[in-house]
Amino acid sequence: MKKNSYISLPVIKRLPRYYRFLGILKKNGTEKISSNELSRQMGLTASQIRQDLNCFGGFGQQGYGYNIEQLYAEIGNILGVNNKIPTILIGAGNLGKAIATHMEFSERGFDLIGVFDRNEALAGQMIKGLPIRHISGLYNFCKDNSPAVAVLCIPEESAKEIVEQLVKLNIKGIWNFTHYNISAEYPFLSVENVHLSDSLMTLSYQLNN
Amino acid sequence: MKKNSYISLPVIKRLPRYYRFLGILKKNGTEKISSNELSRQMGLTASQIRQDLNCFGGFGQQGYGYNIEQLYAEIGNILGVNNKIPTILIGAGNLGKAIATHMEFSERGFDLIGVFDRNEALAGQMIKGLPIRHISGLYNFCKDNSPAVAVLCIPEESAKEIVEQLVKLNIKGIWNFTHYNISAEYPFLSVENVHLSDSLMTLSYQLNN
Repeated sequence: MKKNSYISLPVIKRLPRYYRFLGILKKNGTEKISSNELSRQMGLTASQIRQDLNCFGGFGQQGYGYNIEQLYAEIGNILGVNNKIPTILIGAGNLGKAIATHMEFSERGFDLIGVFDRNEALAGQMIKGLPIRHISGLYNFCKDNSPAVAVLCIPEESAKEIVEQLVKLNIKGIWNFTHYNISAEYPFLSVENVHLSDSLMTLSYQLNN
Repeated sequence: MKKNSYISLPVIKRLPRYYRFLGILKKNGTEKISSNELSRQMGLTASQIRQDLNCFGGFGQQGYGYNIEQLYAEIGNILGVNNKIPTILIGAGNLGKAIATHMEFSERGFDLIGVFDRNEALAGQMIKGLPIRHISGLYNFCKDNSPAVAVLCIPEESAKEIVEQLVKLNIKGIWNFTHYNISAEYPFLSVENVHLSDSLMTLSYQLNN
């Protein structure tokens, strides 16, 4: 994917959104879409969309529209959705269970191979075909299976210790649902934070103003 | 809060993040912080922080730092965290349960007053002190209690119908965990979307490049 190096950061940040909208269109059986129609659905300007999509080949024809299947596949390749990055989930409470159950990891480039919790009472229960393992088995599991990514659905107070352990076990990326500021401590890790309370406060601001 | 009208959109979007970092500092008993130290922790430049915080009074003294408690309270006011917006949760599966259990609604300006699900087997179970109600009771509940915000933790295929119903019941804002494009249909609603798969694909891109 040599083309990637020419895609600017703001465009990259919009890629998952394009991928999501194109995925819905594809599922509905739509084959082509104009930049005007896509702009209406996505809430971006049509010229913004034309500019963005030109960055990686376009797949659009003047007056005819974009080929949805090709564009979807190309953006998927850039995002790496065809990878199978071995991934573990730490924390199998309500949030962890929801994430394991609802997220289509395999369609986003990840392969969920292990689930861990510190609660011994959960050990052996199954989530998405995987047994919940006690956290004490993390070291051996990682040595044997070399996961590269961890999803953190644990209480904030455990986060520091767990991340320290994960880094030693060669984890390269973290999908972080805690508020622990991982990037400040480990700038070399790939970290994507989900700050649900930020999102809730943004809604509060909207309603307040 | 007359000052608000002078705050630009990019600053507003950073407010929940400032609020989160200041909240951690406050909890740790820190009273003052310099823009340099705050910039290190937040991964913004110090001049960006000084510019942002000057927008609403500053509370900083040259060479002394920002008063954390005052700044935290002021940003909280702007975000509306002291409101008690009556809020309902639709969908009490794993995700809904996790959201109801972990989110501190009352510290973010919301008052969770009702939980609904279409699964009759869940009816009567308690989440955070609230009974799960069957969705058929939504109309009467809303007539009696006038919630203004709904949190949607339901399968995508139910979203269109539920949102239509909520709009008729005078809901003004939606915290949307589905992929249903509410804003395209109802531009007058305040909507905050949580697109977890976008976040996961952003991590995939980071690891891939």
